[in-house]
Amino acid sequence: MHFTELIRIKRDGGELSDDQLRFAIESYTADATPDYQMAALVMAIFFRGMSPRELSAWTDAMLKSGTVLDWSHLGKVCVDKHSTGGVGDKISIPLAPAVAACGVPVPMISGRGLGHTGGTLDKLESIPGFQVRIEPAVAKSAMEQIGVAMMGQTEEICPADRRLYALRDTTATVESIPLISSSIMSKKLAEGIGGLVLDVKVGSGAFMKTTERATELAKTLVGIGQKAGCETVALLTRMDRPLGQTVGNALEIEESIHVLQGQGPADIRDLVTELGAEMLVLGGVSDSLSAGRNRIEAVLDDGSALEVFRAMVACQGGDSRVVDAPLEVLPQANRIIPFRASGQGWIQSIDTREVGLASLLLGAGRAKKSDTIDPAVGIKMMKNVGDQVDAGDVIAELHVNEEGQLGAATARLDQSIQLGIESPEHVELFQGRVCGSMLERGES
Amino acid sequence: MHFTELIRIKRDGGELSDDQLRFAIESYTADATPDYQMAALVMAIFFRGMSPRELSAWTDAMLKSGTVLDWSHLGKVCVDKHSTGGVGDKISIPLAPAVAACGVPVPMISGRGLGHTGGTLDKLESIPGFQVRIEPAVAKSAMEQIGVAMMGQTEEICPADRRLYALRDTTATVESIPLISSSIMSKKLAEGIGGLVLDVKVGSGAFMKTTERATELAKTLVGIGQKAGCETVALLTRMDRPLGQTVGNALEIEESIHVLQGQGPADIRDLVTELGAEMLVLGGVSDSLSAGRNRIEAVLDDGSALEVFRAMVACQGGDSRVVDAPLEVLPQANRIIPFRASGQGWIQSIDTREVGLASLLLGAGRAKKSDTIDPAVGIKMMKNVGDQVDAGDVIAELHVNEEGQLGAATARLDQSIQLGIESPEHVELFQGRVCGSMLERGES
Repeated sequence: MHFTELIRIKRDGGELSDDQLRFAIESYTADATPDYQMAALVMAIFFRGMSPRELSAWTDAMLKSGTVLDWSHLGKVCVDKHSTGGVGDKISIPLAPAVAACGVPVPMISGRGLGHTGGTLDKLESIPGFQVRIEPAVAKSAMEQIGVAMMGQTEEICPADRRLYALRDTTATVESIPLISSSIMSKKLAEGIGGLVLDVKVGSGAFMKTTERATELAKTLVGIGQKAGCETVALLTRMDRPLGQTVGNALEIEESIHVLQGQGPADIRDLVTELGAEMLVLGGVSDSLSAGRNRIEAVLDDGSALEVFRAMVACQGGDSRVVDAPLEVLPQANRIIPFRASGQGWIQSIDTREVGLASLLLGAGRAKKSDTIDPAVGIKMMKNVGDQVDAGDVIAELHVNEEGQLGAATARLDQSIQLGIESPEHVELFQGRVCGSMLERGES
Repeated sequence: MHFTELIRIKRDGGELSDDQLRFAIESYTADATPDYQMAALVMAIFFRGMSPRELSAWTDAMLKSGTVLDWSHLGKVCVDKHSTGGVGDKISIPLAPAVAACGVPVPMISGRGLGHTGGTLDKLESIPGFQVRIEPAVAKSAMEQIGVAMMGQTEEICPADRRLYALRDTTATVESIPLISSSIMSKKLAEGIGGLVLDVKVGSGAFMKTTERATELAKTLVGIGQKAGCETVALLTRMDRPLGQTVGNALEIEESIHVLQGQGPADIRDLVTELGAEMLVLGGVSDSLSAGRNRIEAVLDDGSALEVFRAMVACQGGDSRVVDAPLEVLPQANRIIPFRASGQGWIQSIDTREVGLASLLLGAGRAKKSDTIDPAVGIKMMKNVGDQVDAGDVIAELHVNEEGQLGAATARLDQSIQLGIESPEHVELFQGRVCGSMLERGES
């Protein structure tokens, strides 16, 4: 099989066979196909797309390029959640323990932050001692005893995806729905899960700015999951303002703990409840979404989700006193600088990507992969879209250690917030839902 | 400047600036940009194309990646000819000496054969001793004393093109009119010429199968030449049958000598006359195409073109007795096997690419660059499109040394020839002409 011929077929709009797609991934992973041929193929895929069948075979080959986890000895359906990424999106941190507290095991492999978005692993690492690179035996024991582990991707999981992602990053082939979808799904399917809930973000802080693109992505992801035998549901949710109040690693852990204590901002609790309910239905412990919501709310309110979180932190080497005294255990910034409203009005909109980039400038994020992050810094939003402010009101707090980029961060924050003279129209947090049976019925 | 950003701009249909295009070629040639980024860029160019301005800047950067020859001390306008490649296309071999015999210097850099098409250098090398890699001093002396040199591309000429071509060959990005055009024109402009005639082939044996694609290529090539200050004319000519009678290296040299002796097949003589007339006008020695045609016919008929060829062969180390006794000097095949008509009728068409591939199978061509060729073997067409044959008539002779692929070659030849009961419609050799003033007037 000649790789050049595969490129030509895709370039000319043809469909590649399952064998050809498997050959492409296998030969690339085995170093038998050079980067430049794969670069040409992925650019051709960028322009021509992939059929559902092609996408399934491609994702399957990526998934099988490495280890696929096996939790069958648990005797339960494992379920996970993935978010396409946003600003202040700490949902996984309260969600995974809450779902585990309801009896559905969650073997969650997460990523790091890049650009304007944060990463679950970075947030967890702000807890002193917390290890995201854990040995398989530790993960196994955590899953058996606590029902949840939150880990980084290992070298053994989807090596094809890791290599392909690095290539796409330098060849302007990231923004392709088939390539994004196969990257996400190959890693999630390698977790050995039977159910998956996707939180597909839409809006100014999301990769998908429009509902149309987000819906296309959601359908593609769900289609891949269903074909792979993993029941998959996608919720489209608003990402046109920071989620909750906090943007920054330790700040988001603190906020997550509030949610696990039955408190915290309503949007975080609503998302945890809704995504959690979907996971409980997929995991077979709730018969309906409404029953699932009640279960999740109960474990947030009665402290059992918090106890699972405490056990998980301890199991992964973290200081579990964080649960009782987050401000004492988590790193704190040297200075808290108020950002005040310059005038009066309602907050019409927040360019959420800009808030993420402001937080990055303070040191909470990475412009490039090799950057180090400061866990203590970030932004706490005291007001959000729809709130009314007077001149001088504190809209946000900047939690700062190094002040070098403070001016630039403040300017970005300033530009991101639009005030107006009327209360803005309310935008629903939940924008849509895509599930396997909808795809089968051909609904749009 | 980030290469990824250049890829993104082109991918999204934007125009790259002259600086960005120069950076792309320069950084690639300097090994500062890896193959995989250039592969992604050329695939994006494949899909998005290039504007005339982009193409000029891109070609100019390729041209300037190496040495540009300078013949200004000759005090004459140097002119060259390039063919997009065909089967039996030995036109350059009688043409260059004929034009030089009329007083227009021709510093011709040619290529080798690949796939179904032959290469001028391979044909010349079938003359014992003939050197196509000549020292600059030898080329200079040949140009001064004879007015013609026929050479291979050196390492110093267009290194960017050589590298880019190898990359395109393995990434399915060959068949792109902007990339084909910039590759051709950068090498031709590096010859230091003031005029260029292009023979753009169209038909079953050409890269461009349709008049529309061939016209698009011709216009693109002429546009690049004009912008670079090199007066350029393109003739579209038929390539739906082998040119002349012979396909194969020594066979084509023998036929070229016949043309230089004022004989040879009419189509070869017509092409030499028409392309030569264009070159004489560009070189400023003829006032009109009609005067140019008369000059070329005169030097073919009076032996002066042949004497220039003899001098060129001697100057480049070849055995110049080939001019007087080609059959004694040129290598001959061991066996000549007749290929006979299986039935009666008129030859309707010849799939010319198949004839080229049949000749390749006999050893006259290369399936891949590293293959060696046998100069003696090939095919001599005794009949051509429009000829009437009876069953048993010899349509072609196969000149054979190794018989291993003889069956496969014969089968290809057999499939390539279609007989019919009526005389086929005549197709003109000359299909069109594109010149700079037409582009300026916006004619199509």
